[in-house]
Amino acid sequence: MASIEMIEAARARLDGHVRRTPLLSSPFVDEIAGRRVFVKAECLQHSGSFKFRGGWSAVSALPPEIRARGVIAFSSGNHAQGVALAARMHGVPAVIVMPIDAPKLKIDNTRAFGAEVVLYDRIKEDRDEIGARLSKERGLTLIKPFDEPLVIAGQGTSGLEIAEQATEAGIETAEVLVPCGGGGLTSGISLALEARAPGLRVRPCEPAGFDDATRSLAAGKIERNATMSGSICDAIVTPQPGNITFPILQRLCGPGLVVTDEEALQAMAIAFSRLKIVIEPGGAVALAAALFRKDEIKGDTVIAFASGGNVDAEVFATALERFG
Amino acid sequence: MASIEMIEAARARLDGHVRRTPLLSSPFVDEIAGRRVFVKAECLQHSGSFKFRGGWSAVSALPPEIRARGVIAFSSGNHAQGVALAARMHGVPAVIVMPIDAPKLKIDNTRAFGAEVVLYDRIKEDRDEIGARLSKERGLTLIKPFDEPLVIAGQGTSGLEIAEQATEAGIETAEVLVPCGGGGLTSGISLALEARAPGLRVRPCEPAGFDDATRSLAAGKIERNATMSGSICDAIVTPQPGNITFPILQRLCGPGLVVTDEEALQAMAIAFSRLKIVIEPGGAVALAAALFRKDEIKGDTVIAFASGGNVDAEVFATALERFG
Repeated sequence: MASIEMIEAARARLDGHVRRTPLLSSPFVDEIAGRRVFVKAECLQHSGSFKFRGGWSAVSALPPEIRARGVIAFSSGNHAQGVALAARMHGVPAVIVMPIDAPKLKIDNTRAFGAEVVLYDRIKEDRDEIGARLSKERGLTLIKPFDEPLVIAGQGTSGLEIAEQATEAGIETAEVLVPCGGGGLTSGISLALEARAPGLRVRPCEPAGFDDATRSLAAGKIERNATMSGSICDAIVTPQPGNITFPILQRLCGPGLVVTDEEALQAMAIAFSRLKIVIEPGGAVALAAALFRKDEIKGDTVIAFASGGNVDAEVFATALERFG
Repeated sequence: MASIEMIEAARARLDGHVRRTPLLSSPFVDEIAGRRVFVKAECLQHSGSFKFRGGWSAVSALPPEIRARGVIAFSSGNHAQGVALAARMHGVPAVIVMPIDAPKLKIDNTRAFGAEVVLYDRIKEDRDEIGARLSKERGLTLIKPFDEPLVIAGQGTSGLEIAEQATEAGIETAEVLVPCGGGGLTSGISLALEARAPGLRVRPCEPAGFDDATRSLAAGKIERNATMSGSICDAIVTPQPGNITFPILQRLCGPGLVVTDEEALQAMAIAFSRLKIVIEPGGAVALAAALFRKDEIKGDTVIAFASGGNVDAEVFATALERFG
């Protein structure tokens, strides 16, 4: 089971390889949100998202002789890049199974990190099945994107940083808004904050139509999304919360927050002009919730997690044209 | 005179108010540049550029009774925002004299930071004269943009960070490429590195047609630019190096590097896709030199200073459309 001890152990393995990403703020953002907003700029992480943490955590924990055979991952793009880069930095091969409609930048970058990319159809095919088959055929170790304690522990290291940075900034209580797909990041941060900053409470954030975590938390049981495509927030379009992550979310998180694709684009434009960072749509839902769901948030301070920045230029230009 | 002692004193005044901006890197950027590239992401500084350092340094050093009357600055935009924010954080009034063709975002932000903005014509009017007159009329203290030891010392605090971050990254020798307008940042960093990291050597970087520092260094005397408009790199379009800054550049800097506006735009697009940061054209000339002047650079490691990110959405979208 994922635990604070596993998160601390992951941090020790990540030390010297991961970036401590900054906590940014702007008086302009505070004014829109009606409270103090701090943005954890994890888009500046190696590979362009927090997924490098989980990738490194899992790859580095493998016994050397197993690791040498290589790893495999299935991912819409950020886990792909995180695992591919972690594998390359360990000098071992990586096979990544990606949906054929993933952003071109993410596919290109995964290949550029030296991984072999296998494309599949998100609607017609089952990525778990493809991953399991290739894993068996080639002796690769499967690194799951979220429902895996080592991965949750790696993502949780960003929660340890938030706890420290909140203390440095004099923040004792705050809601911490986290983009939520399968729940690996959200559960990892929740575990870290439970142990190191109990005044900080996590709220999962999702795009409208793909609010499986929000509905599952409200229903008290895992609920599934009706479809698997149709949002620009590709990074967090997952079928449902994980079997390992959901009980952690249930125990530690506040109610979910849901924003529209339009609001995510607008948050991207505000992050561009006010914070000078590049956030992808799925990575912008937490900032969007801080800006546009203020009545659903409590307290005078909020921390929004900007989970990734791997966005195609056309999509970013669209955000600037409409909201810049 | 600006000195390492003044830079250390400025750092003490800035402590707790300034951001230690990260040193970023990407294997993709290294590949284009043909060597290791580290980017000092000072676009993430408060007010969106390094100018907050010099503004705070100067405002915080004023005797309280003088400071209370207020400050005045003339600036194309980044010094304006830096001084306006520093003044607001000290609770004193600021008047900023800005060229009428400055980016709209910079004018709007300066006003939003609570400053009174006075616009002037960059070609027909003399900003020094306007600044001196308003300063005298209202009892405001003039904070010059670069030819002022307290401002140079403030900008130099970023050089102290570079020295420390280079040590942390195991870098002993490197060329440090710095966008150069009047030379306040370049001279401040040069002084800091001379004292704290003598293996790091500064190279001023400029846009074609506005290469006054490069030509002045080559000629051994101050040379002036032929015109004062016509580059998108508005942040570093200044008439000539300063009387205080130039002797420091002469003593400590290597030859200048000159890039085109097109190359600056391309560097912005690469910083977008590979580093997830927003750089403005004038702030991108150092990264552009690292990417596109590789034969004029020595050694296996280069540090490029990304000095600001205050760019209008239309200009940024243009960079993405052409090079994204």
